[in-house]
Amino acid sequence: MEWINKKNILIVGLGLMGGSYAMALKRLGYRVYAIDINPESIKYAIDNGLIDDGSTKADPDLISSADAVIFALYPKTFTTWINENQKFLKPGIFITDVTGVKECIVYKIQDILRDDVEFIASHPMAGREVSGVQNSSDMIFRDANYIVVPTDKNTPEAIEWCMMLGRILGFRKISVLSPAEHDKMIAYVSQLTHCIAISLMTGTDLEHVENFTGDSFRDLTRIARINENMWSELFLMNKDTLIDQMDRFIDELTQIKELIADEDTEGLKEKMRLSTKRRMRFDR
Amino acid sequence: MEWINKKNILIVGLGLMGGSYAMALKRLGYRVYAIDINPESIKYAIDNGLIDDGSTKADPDLISSADAVIFALYPKTFTTWINENQKFLKPGIFITDVTGVKECIVYKIQDILRDDVEFIASHPMAGREVSGVQNSSDMIFRDANYIVVPTDKNTPEAIEWCMMLGRILGFRKISVLSPAEHDKMIAYVSQLTHCIAISLMTGTDLEHVENFTGDSFRDLTRIARINENMWSELFLMNKDTLIDQMDRFIDELTQIKELIADEDTEGLKEKMRLSTKRRMRFDR
Repeated sequence: MEWINKKNILIVGLGLMGGSYAMALKRLGYRVYAIDINPESIKYAIDNGLIDDGSTKADPDLISSADAVIFALYPKTFTTWINENQKFLKPGIFITDVTGVKECIVYKIQDILRDDVEFIASHPMAGREVSGVQNSSDMIFRDANYIVVPTDKNTPEAIEWCMMLGRILGFRKISVLSPAEHDKMIAYVSQLTHCIAISLMTGTDLEHVENFTGDSFRDLTRIARINENMWSELFLMNKDTLIDQMDRFIDELTQIKELIADEDTEGLKEKMRLSTKRRMRFDR
Repeated sequence: MEWINKKNILIVGLGLMGGSYAMALKRLGYRVYAIDINPESIKYAIDNGLIDDGSTKADPDLISSADAVIFALYPKTFTTWINENQKFLKPGIFITDVTGVKECIVYKIQDILRDDVEFIASHPMAGREVSGVQNSSDMIFRDANYIVVPTDKNTPEAIEWCMMLGRILGFRKISVLSPAEHDKMIAYVSQLTHCIAISLMTGTDLEHVENFTGDSFRDLTRIARINENMWSELFLMNKDTLIDQMDRFIDELTQIKELIADEDTEGLKEKMRLSTKRRMRFDR
């Protein structure tokens, strides 16, 4: 499917991310349908014009009319859904996802999927501290990054199609990484940072911290408000890579601690100059 | 001195913080003077209406006309300045500071200071990633916290005067902590977070991280752009307390790592629920 509107797009899983995709795609003129087990989510999305129609069941008619399917499910649910419902998918279509880990899921889905449907994985690096379709916003894609995660099984057409999806959704930067590269990067920039934020909130006995914080502490702990069901699953599905990144980070922080203990001012300043130089690249 | 305007306030050290104090106090109607060794900073502040007049030297007339003095200097410079110039201070006045560490400086200043001038320490928990008087803004005090840090030597009048300074500058929340409590709190909410941000930038070999980050990584590393002269001095002046807080944080992060290694989903969720509950207090 080329990205011509008037096509039908089906979103499976209508939470914050599914709802935000729906909002963006409706605005672009697509017919958008959704499947979610929660009737309130479907009702909200129809009432608020996020989707044209939806179902709480894997409705064969809804599935077979889709020219593209976007899966915004928890990783484990994704595999089950494909096993049970792939028989209804229209031949020749591309399907993609929003899953935050890739190695443990992409090869599995590609293995079980019919030969006449192609799964090209992707990861929108966007989100909010709140969840649910009611908090959907297509503004979360602005200034955000989008990663397409192909394997050797994927065709250039599917990769191009998926990159174009990122572009029309409004992402700032579209990149391509292998599943292993993706999971290493995500362990570092996303999962490690969430572990740090959690530790900052849980590892203290100080009272009324909120009265003494500057912006720095508030910034570092914003993501400590966390959906525990989703993130515990994501952490465990990327376990070894995440543990490796945590170890590297703890090593580096320990190095800085030792510079302080040794009163090595020049060593500390060198670290600070490097961090300043690297961080400035983000603000270009 | 009560907080009646038309009084003269002297700011010693005209960087980002001194300039922001000047801006707020001028707007409130005070006559504001400044001393800074950099002639460009003084010129900028006069040209832009931040101060009424200033000097690059410790001008006795400027000092002796001040009804209150605010020191916005690096900690070590502060002691030297007091030793050399306290003889010019008007008898009976209160002086305060903006220094980010307290135990190592407050008692020392109070020890060397004349008996007819009272030093009451305070710490505005505000700042920016950029420095210099040119980046001054009295908006940085909005929604920020202000800590008054008295010792046994301080009078109730000086404490009340200093709390009122925080209020008229526009801080959200004014608190009182002892120097030891302050330094422990600051090691945790400010210095540790800066060490974490630096480590996140310096401890990786991943390329082009900026193309793959979500808001979380950008938030956690905003403060990795850091003034290395000021922060290395602050870290070393609070060395033992900071190292203790770093150790506690590393312990907690290691606990979370072990929960992941053990695939202890319930333990992980419990940490996440606690961090969510605590972090929600910030967003009231």
